[in-house]
Amino acid sequence: MSTIINNIEIIKAKATKINDVDFNNLKFGHVFSDHMLECNFKDGKWAAPKVVPYQAITLDPSSKIFHYGQSVFEGMKAYKDANEDVWLFRPLDNFNRLNISSKRLAIPELPENYFMDGLKTLLEVDKEWVPKNEGSSLYIRPFVFASGNGFHASPADEYKFIICTAPSGAYFSGEVRVLIEETYSRSANGGVGYAKAGGNYAGQFYPTQLAIEKGYQQVIWTDDNTHEYIEEAGAMNIFVRINDTLITGPTSDRILDGITRKSIIELAQAEGIAVEIRKLSVLEVVEAAKNGTLKEMFGAGTAAVISPISGFGYKDTDYDLPKLDDTYANYLKKRITDIQTNKAEDPFGWRYKI
Amino acid sequence: MSTIINNIEIIKAKATKINDVDFNNLKFGHVFSDHMLECNFKDGKWAAPKVVPYQAITLDPSSKIFHYGQSVFEGMKAYKDANEDVWLFRPLDNFNRLNISSKRLAIPELPENYFMDGLKTLLEVDKEWVPKNEGSSLYIRPFVFASGNGFHASPADEYKFIICTAPSGAYFSGEVRVLIEETYSRSANGGVGYAKAGGNYAGQFYPTQLAIEKGYQQVIWTDDNTHEYIEEAGAMNIFVRINDTLITGPTSDRILDGITRKSIIELAQAEGIAVEIRKLSVLEVVEAAKNGTLKEMFGAGTAAVISPISGFGYKDTDYDLPKLDDTYANYLKKRITDIQTNKAEDPFGWRYKI
Repeated sequence: MSTIINNIEIIKAKATKINDVDFNNLKFGHVFSDHMLECNFKDGKWAAPKVVPYQAITLDPSSKIFHYGQSVFEGMKAYKDANEDVWLFRPLDNFNRLNISSKRLAIPELPENYFMDGLKTLLEVDKEWVPKNEGSSLYIRPFVFASGNGFHASPADEYKFIICTAPSGAYFSGEVRVLIEETYSRSANGGVGYAKAGGNYAGQFYPTQLAIEKGYQQVIWTDDNTHEYIEEAGAMNIFVRINDTLITGPTSDRILDGITRKSIIELAQAEGIAVEIRKLSVLEVVEAAKNGTLKEMFGAGTAAVISPISGFGYKDTDYDLPKLDDTYANYLKKRITDIQTNKAEDPFGWRYKI
Repeated sequence: MSTIINNIEIIKAKATKINDVDFNNLKFGHVFSDHMLECNFKDGKWAAPKVVPYQAITLDPSSKIFHYGQSVFEGMKAYKDANEDVWLFRPLDNFNRLNISSKRLAIPELPENYFMDGLKTLLEVDKEWVPKNEGSSLYIRPFVFASGNGFHASPADEYKFIICTAPSGAYFSGEVRVLIEETYSRSANGGVGYAKAGGNYAGQFYPTQLAIEKGYQQVIWTDDNTHEYIEEAGAMNIFVRINDTLITGPTSDRILDGITRKSIIELAQAEGIAVEIRKLSVLEVVEAAKNGTLKEMFGAGTAAVISPISGFGYKDTDYDLPKLDDTYANYLKKRITDIQTNKAEDPFGWRYKI
C-alpha cells in the first residue's frame, strides 16, 4: 500500500531499523535510514521518483556502471534544530552541480522537481533519522549511475537516480596531516575534475594509500603539468591563511566548485577577512611556512565542513603549522555550522527548511 | 549439484539460451553466454572462483562501485578454428594488465591461477558459444569492481571479479572518421590513463557525443597540456603511416599499453615495415595530409582489431585519407587475425589453446 506526499509515491518499510542504531556513536556513512528515493531513466525519460524501503539493487553483469564508470554523486547534510525542525544547506546548489556533473559524464540531467520534491519527501518520511547530537547530521547521498546493459563503450540507455541517507558523525577524527603531491595527479585540463564523478575518487585511492604509509591522512593535489600549483584535496577544497589573508585557488575544469568552499569565501568576506581567489604555488606556501607567515591551512567540504591541517609534507620535508588560539578555521566552522543548524541568523538565505 | 574442472567448481545453468541466438547476425557485446566466472574478495583475500549461471548481481546502494568508480576491466577474444579448437590471444598479457590496472585503482590484485584456470574452465563449459563465422568471436570481459559498502571515499573492503562472455560481430561497421580533440582530454600526467579503469571511459562519452554530432565516430585524444600531440582513441591506440613508415606514440602513464598495439609493432617489424615509436604531433599529421605523404591512419584494439580511418577533422578542417589498394591496415589485420584464428603459423607464440 502506498501514500502520496508532495506528488511523490511512498512505499513504507514494514519495520524500522532505528532502534538498532546508537546515535551517540555514529561513524560516517555506515548506517542507513529506513527509506531511499528511487527514480529510473528508461526509453529516453526519467520516470517519477518513489520513496521505497532501503533495499538492494539488482543489475545485469553487463550493466555499464561495472565497466565504464558512468556515475556521479552529491554529498549533502540535513540538520535538526532544537525545535525538531529539519534543515538543508543550499540544496539547489547540489541539484545544479549534480546536473553539471551528469552533463559531463553524458548522463541525462534530472528535472528539478524530481530532485527537490523527492528529497523533501524522503526526509519527511525518515525525519526520525536526522540526528540531534552536536556534530552529527544526516548525511545525504544523491547519486546517478548507468544501469543499462552491454559491452560497448558508449553511454547507457538506462540510469538510476537514488538518494540514500546515513546518520553520521564526524568524517575525520583528529588532526589531518597532508602530503603535497609531486608525482600523481587527480585531473587533467579538459577532463572531468570539476564533476563529482565516481572515477575521480577511485583514481586518488592509491596515491592516498602511499601518503598514508608515509604518515599523512590526505593528499593535496597539484596541477598535472608542473605540480607547482595547489589544486584541491580530493574530498575537500583547500584554504591557506598567510598572515591574515585567506587564499584559495580558483575553480576550473580540474577543481570541484565546492559549496562549502564558496560559502566560506562569502562568509569570510562578509566578516571583513581578506580573501584572495588566485593560483597558489607550493613554493609560496613553503616560503610562508619557513618565514612564519603561514598561519593556517584547512580543507573545506560537505562531509568534513572545515578540517584544520596540522602540517604538510613536501619533497621529503615536513612543515608544521603553528598552534593558534584563534583560528579562521574554528571561527568560520562555527559560523557556518551555526547557520546550518539554525543557531544563528542566515543573512545569505542558505538554510532550507524541510 | 556441482562438478570440478581445473580445480574450479562449476554450477551449471539449468537450461541453455543458445538456441535463441542468431549467430549470423551478432552485434557486439549484446548477447551473453550461459555461464560466468565469479570470484569474491572478502576478509583480505580472494576466495576460489566458481563457474556459475550467468546471473544478476545484487548490491547494497552504498556499494562503492556506485559512488567512487573503483573498477577495472579487460577485453579479450576467443576464436574457434576449423577443427573446433578454441584459441585465446596473449591471455597472460591481459591478466598482467588487469593487475596493473587494479594496483593503480587500489583494488587487490588477482592470483594468476584464479584468472587463467577460471577463464579456461569458463570457456570449456561455454565452448558452444564461441562463434565460427568469419569476423565473429567470443568477446570476453573480465572485470573487477568494489562491492564493499559505505559512504567514505576510500578503497572498499570487498570486491567482485567476474568474467562474462558475449558472442560478437564487428565492433565498428563501416568507415571511421575521427576528430582530433582540441578542448577535452582523456587523461592526466600522473593519472590513471594507462589503466583500463571504468572512469576513463565515462569521461570520453560527452566529448565523443559532440564529435558524433559533427559527423565523426571517434575522438583522437591529445595531451591535456598543449593538445599538440596525438595520444590514443580511447578504445584504440592510433597508428599513422607517413610514406612507408608506421608511427605510433609511446605508451606512458596517460596511454594504455594495448596488446593489439604491441602485436602490430612486432608483426610489422618482423615483416620489414619501418616502425617508429615516438611522439607524434598533430601538425606533423596535418602537414603530411597536405603534402600527400600521409598514407594511412588506423586504430588498434582488441574489440576492433584494426579499424581503418577514412579521414580526420582538426580545427574545423576535414582531411581525407587516400584510398589505397594495398594498405598496411588490411595486411596487418589479416596477418594478426590469421594468427588469432589458427589459420597461419604463430612464430611469436601468441596463440593460447583452451
